[in-house]
Amino acid sequence: MAPPLKDELDIVIPTIRNLDFLEMWRPFFQLYHLIIVQDGDPAKTIKVPEGFDYELYNRNDINKILGPRASCISFKDSACRCFGYMVSKKKYIYTIDDDCFVAKDPTGKDIDALAQHIKNLLCPSTPLFFNTLYDPYAPGADFVRGYPFSLREGVPTAVSHGLWLNIPDYDAPTQLVKPRERNERYVNAVMTIPKGTLFPMCGMNLAFDRDLIGPAMYFGLMGDGQPIGRYDDMWAGWCVKVICDHLGLGVKTGLPYIWHSKASNPFVNLKKEYKGIFWQEDIIPFFQAVVLPKDCDTVQKCYIALSQQVKEKLGKVDPYFIKLADAMVTWIEAWDSLNSGGAAVANGKPKK
Amino acid sequence: MAPPLKDELDIVIPTIRNLDFLEMWRPFFQLYHLIIVQDGDPAKTIKVPEGFDYELYNRNDINKILGPRASCISFKDSACRCFGYMVSKKKYIYTIDDDCFVAKDPTGKDIDALAQHIKNLLCPSTPLFFNTLYDPYAPGADFVRGYPFSLREGVPTAVSHGLWLNIPDYDAPTQLVKPRERNERYVNAVMTIPKGTLFPMCGMNLAFDRDLIGPAMYFGLMGDGQPIGRYDDMWAGWCVKVICDHLGLGVKTGLPYIWHSKASNPFVNLKKEYKGIFWQEDIIPFFQAVVLPKDCDTVQKCYIALSQQVKEKLGKVDPYFIKLADAMVTWIEAWDSLNSGGAAVANGKPKK
Repeated sequence: MAPPLKDELDIVIPTIRNLDFLEMWRPFFQLYHLIIVQDGDPAKTIKVPEGFDYELYNRNDINKILGPRASCISFKDSACRCFGYMVSKKKYIYTIDDDCFVAKDPTGKDIDALAQHIKNLLCPSTPLFFNTLYDPYAPGADFVRGYPFSLREGVPTAVSHGLWLNIPDYDAPTQLVKPRERNERYVNAVMTIPKGTLFPMCGMNLAFDRDLIGPAMYFGLMGDGQPIGRYDDMWAGWCVKVICDHLGLGVKTGLPYIWHSKASNPFVNLKKEYKGIFWQEDIIPFFQAVVLPKDCDTVQKCYIALSQQVKEKLGKVDPYFIKLADAMVTWIEAWDSLNSGGAAVANGKPKK
Repeated sequence: MAPPLKDELDIVIPTIRNLDFLEMWRPFFQLYHLIIVQDGDPAKTIKVPEGFDYELYNRNDINKILGPRASCISFKDSACRCFGYMVSKKKYIYTIDDDCFVAKDPTGKDIDALAQHIKNLLCPSTPLFFNTLYDPYAPGADFVRGYPFSLREGVPTAVSHGLWLNIPDYDAPTQLVKPRERNERYVNAVMTIPKGTLFPMCGMNLAFDRDLIGPAMYFGLMGDGQPIGRYDDMWAGWCVKVICDHLGLGVKTGLPYIWHSKASNPFVNLKKEYKGIFWQEDIIPFFQAVVLPKDCDTVQKCYIALSQQVKEKLGKVDPYFIKLADAMVTWIEAWDSLNSGGAAVANGKPKK
């Protein structure tokens, strides 16, 4: 049987430091095209094992392709992965970190994370009313008594957020307090995050519909020369969620799990995170209150409107947000320059 | 070890038609006090096996205790169970249907549903931001990266909504379409239903904090003489959720599971439900839009304010809602006459 969506999905990986990574994923990833975005020194070479179909971008490539607009892409930080979202021409993106391996389900079977993400993306979301039996479209499940029939068609799914067994995605303070905590709980559920509710989106194991939400998947300014790190995926998640809510799109979380092998250094993380931990106390109320103008009917228009509000409201918290707001605009310009731009997004067609 | 909350929890059962029911639950229920509210002919006698501590109310008792206000308690319908919430003087209530048996967890062990509900109620809820690893207070779990620290204390939990293995809680049309569907998916999670999100609350396996939300747990006018049935728990759930959101209280759903043994007759259900299926298309937008006045700082005040809006807005849908709105007021009068009334709720003290 042909693998689903072979020509419709790219796998974006920020960098591959671990040679076992691709070998372990070979049965699942070899069927797809990989976009590797190298986050560090362009002089270093990433060895990709035989048999994989891939393209690789380092900083020099990014500078060449985007010119001055390359300033919106983070350097020496895995946030640079979002460049891969921009150069892809596929409808779907799956992104994964190189310390994430194949997990096993409770029966001991290898989990095909991609297959589950594709299922999640192809199947509608239900952000307008909560279904207590979780995904109502899953086999053996449905909408329960009291669920309005007019809402049972759901809305298109833009994002599928997968989870992690073993090392949980904790911030540095929690890592320091609970160094030995492991996530051993396999929760057999996929659920829609309700409209109006924000969540912490982790980029470790994440899939999305590029046509529906791609231009909002900007991972911000992190790493080299920036006062903050480890908030790239969080920032993207908050922007994406308010735009999905505005445009009537769905965001799911839950299955599939990957096996997160290695906790990053909590002391290094603390240094990257501490401003974010402070700032997020203002960022969250900002995103909870943000209202996008009614005439914003494309992701691009929403994102530009959001950047203006970021500048105006969060600029008061720290000048970093003024720089970030400008980068958000540059990102959209760069996106549109590589894609068909404006309202109509790429729809999986090649760029030339 | 003494069972938790022995003197703080009552079990309310609408009626017991099935003699096996209490025998099966004996190891778990015998420790608690039962309040049985008989929904049909008062001349019939319910046999309660030896060893249970219980009180039983039939229609004659309800009429005697409430006088003319007994009109707010449904007759010949399990919605009458809410009379038990009113006469209880305990802090917590667990209510369960008599066709619900002890379920087994995936290891084959009997699930102590009450113990899990008590855990859920004693532990805070997190309605203001979504935690992707589900209950952050569960052993082996925590708040993930990006979760604002200021929100990690959570809010008090008012409701614990448990689920059902085997026969799912479907409406009549879904029962008719999928007569053989069984819920076999054990999802090992407890989650908070986010603020601003409505859910279908099922009364089959439900626990709540009477002090925090009791006066809003009114199961409406159903059954004999009413144009509708099977919306008692739904109605209560919608009222409870908007009031919890207004007062900063939490509602959880997920574990524990019970084993729901018997599907009710879909043809009978259709007759009871069909107006509700039609009306809920107006009811849900009403509850999604409802705003309670800021000065409503008790459940009673919220509930009275809600009843006024029900009368005004839903009264246009059908005269039934005018009658229901009046019954909501009568319910609060009856509640306050049996309890200490107004702002201060019973706090587990005996009524005399």
